[in-house]
Order: sequence, then C-alpha cells, then structure tokens
Amino acid sequence: MQYPEPIAKLIDSFMKLPGIGPKTAVRLAFFVIDMKDDDVMDFGRALVNVKRQLVYCSECQNISDRDPCYICDDSSRDRTTICVVQEPKDVIAMEKMKDYRGLYHVLHGSISPVDGIGPEDIKVAELIKRLQDEQVQEVILATNPTIEGEATAMYISRLIKPAGVKTSRIAHGLPVGGDLEYADEVTLSKALEGRREL
Amino acid sequence: MQYPEPIAKLIDSFMKLPGIGPKTAVRLAFFVIDMKDDDVMDFGRALVNVKRQLVYCSECQNISDRDPCYICDDSSRDRTTICVVQEPKDVIAMEKMKDYRGLYHVLHGSISPVDGIGPEDIKVAELIKRLQDEQVQEVILATNPTIEGEATAMYISRLIKPAGVKTSRIAHGLPVGGDLEYADEVTLSKALEGRREL
Repeated sequence: MQYPEPIAKLIDSFMKLPGIGPKTAVRLAFFVIDMKDDDVMDFGRALVNVKRQLVYCSECQNISDRDPCYICDDSSRDRTTICVVQEPKDVIAMEKMKDYRGLYHVLHGSISPVDGIGPEDIKVAELIKRLQDEQVQEVILATNPTIEGEATAMYISRLIKPAGVKTSRIAHGLPVGGDLEYADEVTLSKALEGRREL
Repeated sequence: MQYPEPIAKLIDSFMKLPGIGPKTAVRLAFFVIDMKDDDVMDFGRALVNVKRQLVYCSECQNISDRDPCYICDDSSRDRTTICVVQEPKDVIAMEKMKDYRGLYHVLHGSISPVDGIGPEDIKVAELIKRLQDEQVQEVILATNPTIEGEATAMYISRLIKPAGVKTSRIAHGLPVGGDLEYADEVTLSKALEGRREL
C-alpha cells in the first residue's frame, strides 16, 4: 500500500534532507500530521521565506536578511582586519566566540580541483576587490583544516601578499579538552610545530 | 551573534521535530538555503497540504486523502474481519506484509490512565458502532505489545465479546531473525506460553 499522496510528498521532501532516511522521513511526516496547524503553517512559511528573504551581503558575501549585513554595517567593528571563512556557518561559529571584532569574507566553498572547483567558482575576486578599496591591514585565513581548506588558504595568501597586506592562518593543534593519546599524527605534528615558549 | 531572522525561524521549526536538536536544526536549515528553489517550495507546499488535504476516513478512522479511504472503498477486501491498530502508521506496516485482506480500525492512541487517556479519548465508540452495522465476524486486536496496548486490547475484547464477535490478539514471541540470548524475559515467557505443536 502506498501512503496517501500528501503524506508521500512530504516524506519525499524530508528524504531530500541530509541524514534523513526513509524511516526517519516517515516518522517526521506522521509527526507533522499530528502537529498543531499553526506550527505547520509557520514551518512552511519559514521554508519559503528562507529562500525569498535571504540575500548575500554585497561586501562580505555572507547570507543576511539585509544588504549590507549587520556586521559590515556595524561601525564598532574593526575594519582593518578581514577573516576569510568558507561558509556562512563559519561566521556564526566565529561570532559565538565573541573575541573577534573585525570583518568577515565568506568564500562559499573551497578550491577543490578533484570536484572541478577552481578559484573562479568561489568568492576570491570579491575579496581581492575589497583589499583594494579598504584600509585592510590583515587578512586572517580561517578556512577549514582540510586539504581543500589548506589549498584555498595557500592560494589566497600567495595572491594577496604582493599587495602588502599581512596574511595569517589560524593555528592547528590539539583541540582544548582533547586527548593526546587519541590525536592523529598530522595534528600532533602541527601542534609540535606550532609550539610557543611559556 | 544571532542568525538572520528567516534562518532563525526555520531552525526553530526544525527543532520542533522529534529527534532534531539545535545542531541538527542548524545543519538542516543551512542545507535548505543551498537547496534548489523548486525543492524548497515543494517542501513548503507538502507541509501545508498534509494539513489541508488529509481527512479521517469516516469508517476506519485512518488518515486518507479521501473518504471513505481506499481500503474501506475496496470491494475486494474481506469485510468480515477488522484489524484494530493504534496508529495510521500501523496500517501501513500491516499493508506492507500483503497477507492481510480484511479491513482496519485506527484507534488513534491507546488507553493510558497515567496520561489521562481513557476509552472515550480514542476511537472505541466508532469501532463498536461498526460492529453493529456490519457483518463482522472477527476483530483482530493488533495494538502494540506495550502495557498501554495490552490494556487497550483487553478493554476492547471485554467490550465486544458479549456481542458474539470473535476477538483475537496478535501473537507475542521472538521476532524472526532475533536472538534467543538477547530476548528479554517477558518476551521469552510469552514465546514459551504461545508455543505451537509441530
């Protein structure tokens, strides 16, 4: 027996989400059926609005509901430093820390020749343009500590060094609260390499 | 930093679903942002439609997109047998088996005094009404093998026995492919109790 069409369609939609297989999709769909009408309408509206109302900030390329975004528009931020990250999620992670008061630049991806993603497919040109216009003194490369992230950081650093802007890379090492015993060799080697005098 | 409002609202909606915590909700919301426009619109529409288009079958109380539902309306089904289940999901599970050709009755819950759910809160009265109108010969009680499910089955069985309708309860025992070693005592005891001669 098939599910009634409205349920089947909802199950299909849930299955398009990451980490949600057929069984979870069915469970979620039946949960929605029992949810309050208002909550379901809000959910539907939230889905549509996230597509309709979000824009990319023309300065930092982060997603926002306004342009320029709150961070680029905030006069209390330090405009001499730009932190380059791969994804909008990374901006949120950095902001949670509350230590960083500079600006951001979101690349929306990383250079990955294997997947056919070159520098022209991510927002590198927009970053270079910002370096010409503004009084930027330092670019912090905070791409992920993966092969693609490292390659992207390396590429950008070589590109902007001639412009005389200081470039730095966030530190690699053991995560706080981590266990030396369980650290992989590469992390351990990076931690040793990046040791600081006490 | 807070998420832009459209994202925050979507995260909130995702968090209302079972088994989805804050981190997963964020991951799903950002996935939706990167999804194709059409897919997101379909998702939103599916959510709204599941509330708007679904009705309860006036005979079996199952959810369906028409009344009577496909099963109650199917003249090839055996109308002498009614299988009583707790939830619409259970009908789907039974139908997947393909062995059962009778009708269903969905209770939409089980009797649970602890949660304040009595017989009047589930669709028992509707079942009794069906037994008077139709040529029903057997009622199969397929409520869950839980305390509430057993209590519900027991209650219904006592209620309809005077009417002369045969009532049966689905068997308890070891699940097929299960392991004797890992079976709990109650299941094992039920399996022994329900043993059949070969």
